Formats: sequence, C-alpha cells, structure tokens
Amino acid sequence: MKRVGYPSEIVELISHLKRLPGVGPKSAERIAIWLLRAKGEFAFEFSSAIRNAKEQVTFCRFCGFFESGLAGCDFCRDADRNEQCICVVEQPTDMLPIERTGAFRGFYHSLGGKISPLDNVGPEELRIDALVQRIKEGCVSEIILAVGSDVEGEATASFLADHLKRIDFGRPLSITRIAQGMPAGGGLESADELTLFRALDGRRSL
Amino acid sequence: MKRVGYPSEIVELISHLKRLPGVGPKSAERIAIWLLRAKGEFAFEFSSAIRNAKEQVTFCRFCGFFESGLAGCDFCRDADRNEQCICVVEQPTDMLPIERTGAFRGFYHSLGGKISPLDNVGPEELRIDALVQRIKEGCVSEIILAVGSDVEGEATASFLADHLKRIDFGRPLSITRIAQGMPAGGGLESADELTLFRALDGRRSL
Repeated sequence: MKRVGYPSEIVELISHLKRLPGVGPKSAERIAIWLLRAKGEFAFEFSSAIRNAKEQVTFCRFCGFFESGLAGCDFCRDADRNEQCICVVEQPTDMLPIERTGAFRGFYHSLGGKISPLDNVGPEELRIDALVQRIKEGCVSEIILAVGSDVEGEATASFLADHLKRIDFGRPLSITRIAQGMPAGGGLESADELTLFRALDGRRSL
Repeated sequence: MKRVGYPSEIVELISHLKRLPGVGPKSAERIAIWLLRAKGEFAFEFSSAIRNAKEQVTFCRFCGFFESGLAGCDFCRDADRNEQCICVVEQPTDMLPIERTGAFRGFYHSLGGKISPLDNVGPEELRIDALVQRIKEGCVSEIILAVGSDVEGEATASFLADHLKRIDFGRPLSITRIAQGMPAGGGLESADELTLFRALDGRRSL
C-alpha cells in the first residue's frame, strides 16, 4: 500500500517545529497547518522574523546579554546604573526577572552556564575571565552572585567566591549571594527539608 | 526609569511565536531564545521551511487536501483507489486519521468547515458544489459522511444528506454516516448520556 500523506514541504516544516522546546509531534502538525492557513502574510513575516533575529542579534561583549548593533546591550549602554555593583547570573535570560523586581540598579554579568561536571562544563567554559577583567578595569565594589540554588549553582557560587577572593584587585571587593529561604506565599507544609533548613540557617533578627 | 529588555528583533520574534496555537508568552520567549542559540543553521533552515511550505503548498482542487505542484494531491493521484466511494470530511487534516485506520480505500472530499451559524458559516461557505460536481462527473455510488458528532457536525450531515438526495444524479447514490457509539476502551461509567443514547440507538445484532 502506497503511503499517502502531507506534501514534502509540510513534512519538512513539521519536522522543524517538532524540534522546538515544548512542541510535540501533535502540536507541530497543528502549528504547521495553522501557519499554512494563517491570514495575510503572517507566515512570511514569521519566517523573516526568525531570520532577522538570528542575523542581527549577538551577545554583548561586556555582560553577555543579547544586543543588536555594535554599541553594547541595553543594560551596558544605560548611564544611570550603579557602576559599583555587578550581579552575576547563569544565563542572559536571568537578567530580566531580576530587573523586573526593581531591587537592583547595577550592571549584570552572564556566565553563560554553571559548573556541571556531568555535562562537561568546567569553570573554563564560563565567562569568568571576562568578569575578572570588568572588575579590574571598573570601580566595582560588590559582586552579587545570583546563580541558581541547585547543586550546580551552589558549586558555581563557591568556586567564584573563592576565585575572586584570591585575586588582588587593589581595593576591597564584597562578594554576596542572594538569600535562600521560603518562597513568597509558600506555607511551611509545602516547603521541602533543604529549603526549610536554609530558611532557618539564614534567619534574620527583626 | 528606562525600560530595558530584549533587542527589537527578539521582541518581534516573540510576538510572532505567541500567536501560534498552543504557544503562550512564556513558551514563546523560551522558543525564541532557543532558536537564537540553536546549533548550526537550524534557525535559517526553519525560516526557509516556513517560507517554502507557504509558497509551494496549495489545496487540491478536487478533494481540498494539501498538494504541492499542480497534478492533484497524493490521494487524488492514487489510481488504486475505489472511485465509487467518497468520504466527506470537515477539514483536510481529517483525511489522514481515516487513512491510517486502513478501513477506507476510496477518495476524500473536504468541505473546508462545518455549518455553524454562530461563526457565520453557512452551506454556501463549504465546498458542497465541488462535491456535487465530482459525483456528477464520476461514477460515485456511496457518500460516507465522516463529519464530527458535535452539533455543527450533525447539522452539516443532515443538510448534506437532504441536499444530495434532492439532486438527480441519474443513478442511485447511497449516503451513509459513520457510526456513533462507545469509543474503544471506554467503560460505561465514563460515557456521557448522549454517547450512551446513540450507542443504544445504533445497536447491531450479533
């Protein structure tokens, strides 16, 4: 029996869509058919938007955030920021959630990952030298380590703290780590042991 | 305070991704960043696959399925099929599930929708004239109505059956409707009233 199915162009489109994160075979088929039927020029505009983003967007050579053009990213071009403080994150996408809190007005630095021996990511794969360079050349007095609180994040924070403490920047450098404890709105009954341990351990006097 | 965020190219890409079915704002952001970081030429190939599918794929003028090229779709070019039977479906995407059952080897006809007064879809919006034309010109002796079993599907099936019965094709035409009843693997306790009613109503002697 002859296999009958979609034309090769649709099959090709579905196979690309299936590779996107969070898109399964069923959704890929649904999106492909939706795209073919989308009103007006949507499919062409979408195609161009992908090409355009991929062609124009690069990583900021200072902090590692996304930029288009060559003058540095939105964060690093912002003259209103506090140059004394750098917040170190794992991924460039971690900067926006911190920014949205409104609690931080310094500069950012993305490591581009975290130390993870299982994935063959060691300190040399991370943007640590670039961070040291920025501290040396600038007037930074505080480094906030805003990496995740999983095992790899902990390892990365410890390594970085040790590493930076060993370097003589010719001025005092305070190294801090964002607090760990109960998430907002979380009841005690839903907290796991480690979270509760860290919440107790990091208790503050009122 | 200045709004800091992704470069405009990423914002543009996210806004397109958000419009895809089943993709929310969070997934759109995740997919956009994933695309920018995807290895090799994936993003460009994906962009081309969309453009290519949109440019090449049209609807078969006979059955309404997807085709690329001008010689009719895979189904209508298949000489091994039974010309006496046409299976009528709502959407071209309904043909593949039926095909996969292996229970049908005739031709298909997509209506392109179902009668739905609430969405302003009347019989004149559907590919009914094209169906009548195919029956007139071919040697069709059975029309299987494989439309959905929701209210609109029922209305469409009734309308089509009445409509076709009124036309004199110069030969007998049998009009059937796919069976309604218990889905495979469904226990009685999980069946709704209407399904159970239809299952009883359509009982077959053993």
